[in-house]
Amino acid sequence: VDAQDAQRLDSLLDPLHAADIADLLEQISPTVRRELLRLWPEGIDGDILSELEEGIREEVIESLSPDVLAEAVRTLDTDDVVDILEDMEAADQDRLLGALDKADRVAVEQALAYPEYSAGRLMQREVVVAPEDWNVGQAIDYMRSVETLPDQFYHVILVDPRMKPRGYVTLGRVLSSRRDVLLHDIVEDSFRTIEAHEPEADVAYIFNHYHLISCAVVDAHDRLVGVITIDDAMNVLDEEHEEDMLRMAGVDDEASLSDTVIEAAKGRAVWLFVNLLTAILASLVISAFAETINQMVALAVLMPIVASMGGNAGTQTMTVAVRALATRDLTSQNALRVIWREAAVGAINGCIFGLLMALIAGWWFGIPMLAVVIGVAMVLTHIAAAAGGILIPMGLQRFGVDPALASGPFVTTVTDVVGFFAFLGLASWALL
Amino acid sequence: VDAQDAQRLDSLLDPLHAADIADLLEQISPTVRRELLRLWPEGIDGDILSELEEGIREEVIESLSPDVLAEAVRTLDTDDVVDILEDMEAADQDRLLGALDKADRVAVEQALAYPEYSAGRLMQREVVVAPEDWNVGQAIDYMRSVETLPDQFYHVILVDPRMKPRGYVTLGRVLSSRRDVLLHDIVEDSFRTIEAHEPEADVAYIFNHYHLISCAVVDAHDRLVGVITIDDAMNVLDEEHEEDMLRMAGVDDEASLSDTVIEAAKGRAVWLFVNLLTAILASLVISAFAETINQMVALAVLMPIVASMGGNAGTQTMTVAVRALATRDLTSQNALRVIWREAAVGAINGCIFGLLMALIAGWWFGIPMLAVVIGVAMVLTHIAAAAGGILIPMGLQRFGVDPALASGPFVTTVTDVVGFFAFLGLASWALL
Repeated sequence: VDAQDAQRLDSLLDPLHAADIADLLEQISPTVRRELLRLWPEGIDGDILSELEEGIREEVIESLSPDVLAEAVRTLDTDDVVDILEDMEAADQDRLLGALDKADRVAVEQALAYPEYSAGRLMQREVVVAPEDWNVGQAIDYMRSVETLPDQFYHVILVDPRMKPRGYVTLGRVLSSRRDVLLHDIVEDSFRTIEAHEPEADVAYIFNHYHLISCAVVDAHDRLVGVITIDDAMNVLDEEHEEDMLRMAGVDDEASLSDTVIEAAKGRAVWLFVNLLTAILASLVISAFAETINQMVALAVLMPIVASMGGNAGTQTMTVAVRALATRDLTSQNALRVIWREAAVGAINGCIFGLLMALIAGWWFGIPMLAVVIGVAMVLTHIAAAAGGILIPMGLQRFGVDPALASGPFVTTVTDVVGFFAFLGLASWALL
Repeated sequence: VDAQDAQRLDSLLDPLHAADIADLLEQISPTVRRELLRLWPEGIDGDILSELEEGIREEVIESLSPDVLAEAVRTLDTDDVVDILEDMEAADQDRLLGALDKADRVAVEQALAYPEYSAGRLMQREVVVAPEDWNVGQAIDYMRSVETLPDQFYHVILVDPRMKPRGYVTLGRVLSSRRDVLLHDIVEDSFRTIEAHEPEADVAYIFNHYHLISCAVVDAHDRLVGVITIDDAMNVLDEEHEEDMLRMAGVDDEASLSDTVIEAAKGRAVWLFVNLLTAILASLVISAFAETINQMVALAVLMPIVASMGGNAGTQTMTVAVRALATRDLTSQNALRVIWREAAVGAINGCIFGLLMALIAGWWFGIPMLAVVIGVAMVLTHIAAAAGGILIPMGLQRFGVDPALASGPFVTTVTDVVGFFAFLGLASWALL
């Protein structure tokens, strides 16, 4: 395709959806991408820009002429412009802001004044409002007369004279009601507002929990300042999940496949370093029992099994706990019940696998006491894993730390230390 | 609250959103829940039932009288009824189906005929359609005349005489256009259809990728059979994420906080068992070097560090790969580039932490050759971890296995075996 044939390129790419073109741009190699952008600059519109991931987007923006860029951005709703702008450097931001109409520029600047990852950054300014006392006919006539309605809107928000939102009407209800019906007689009872400073994670939770399609955003004085639509909330939900997953694995949560090797290595080194420290801590426990191992090398062979099983049981409990905290299924209401349940699960699986491992070790090494020691050590480690797996995320949450981010190292430290200590300690006491 | 005061209960719970009541029911203890249901049966409506999670829902449904249940279900859209029914046993299903109107019952039965987790199960039958050649005025008059419109709808779908969907118009465009504008002049270019047999995971992907709000569902003959709305897609997206996260940690993907202790223990035992086998495999590697360890106990102290670092590096790469496969950012197009990148990241971090660990081991045990051995072993293990972390999920995906489900055990086996083998093998060759 990239045989310099710009015409052919245009006819191939033009019918595609912006999201697909963005995917294509992300997946081809950097050299091919540069070539494509050189051949097809006029093809890049605002929609493609907002679909691109950060790293690639910067690259694309730098390659575009100011005119093309200005044209591309002008067609977007304010929330999409904000989304593009917030990842850019100050100089580039100014260049892009300069390309906007005055009204849009002011709206974008106001949105940027809200903290990052807040509802204010997520909302679009374009809102369809109607006074509380209008009827359906007035609303329809108004909408027909307004020139620029938002790209996507699903509700008409009713406001009082001081712009405080009072309720909303779905477009479906507006359309299916007679012209003389009063708007405030057909409002939805699901109406709620979000304060512009609320974190976007809470916004996603509210949309998902209450099945909202759009939600009015108000300022500190309860006045309407914008609206968030479900597609933005779905996006945040998706990002939050990705963050949780990457954080739990100790990967930088902004990581993406288009990062360079150095960026990717750096993003993972932090948690590898933490893991190194906890692994050394576990080794110190082992080295305290060096004499014991010296007398029975079977201990060295078996001890990683105890630690590995404990680590896995701990990760299981931790994942359930982190997830339940994120979905708010685990609260102070039911915490005690959940902790007891996890401890019981740990004890049961500890007994099952302790017994199994005792049988295996007894058969393998033919030392009955060694079998007893590894069995008991497994039970203890599983219970410690369950306790650590649930208490550590809950504790971190209480201290305002994201449990997904920091639980992993703490939990494995607990299971490794308890595992090695229980196994080697019991062995040195019972076997020697 | 539960001091038998039914009136007080009613006044407290009635103003709450169904989702919040469901949360409350999930979080209180089983005894309190039974008591509450006995006191307040008439409060349970269909919306609360669809918000409840499976285990609790069965409990609640069993406690309700057939009349209350029938009344509760009758108000729901077909997709929500299907959602409740599909988790129930056959006898209960019949009871509930019997409570529905004839038309609804047929619709629900048709939906249940589609495979589980398909678009057909997700869609609602209630659709607003208009012939292609209508104008805005005709559409509005039609909507005003129809008695039962769906609870939520955002588009009017244009169909040809054989019910094949041709495009859709947003309600916003209908409202803002003059009555004589033809519907097919204001259709959206984002229109696409989903085949009813497509898996729901693909539905969620399409909604998220193309920012859809609703999407027409067609049968094998391309005829319109229903519509899926974004709130259902958001729900699926959320569930898919939860599944991925739980699967990666080796927890049964249907696990929830309301499972009993036995259910929870069973759901985790499977993967603990797999882990036991892989841990034993790693131990066999160690036991092959028992003689070496016997001669230098420092090896037993240090070997868990090599395995632990390798395991973590492998999990990092694996998580990035599983996530990228799920979002379809990792395709056969860019696979080779991503594999090379991961190998390079592994090599870089391997060198950094290998060097660091060599310094620590040298200082700790004062044996220069031991420092060299652990350093080289760390580099090799990190590269193996990177290779395993990316190739195993990709391989599983190719063979049609969910990479989130099965990658974990394979990757840790690779890192453990390579880690122990490299470290102990190098040690026995270089040190003794």
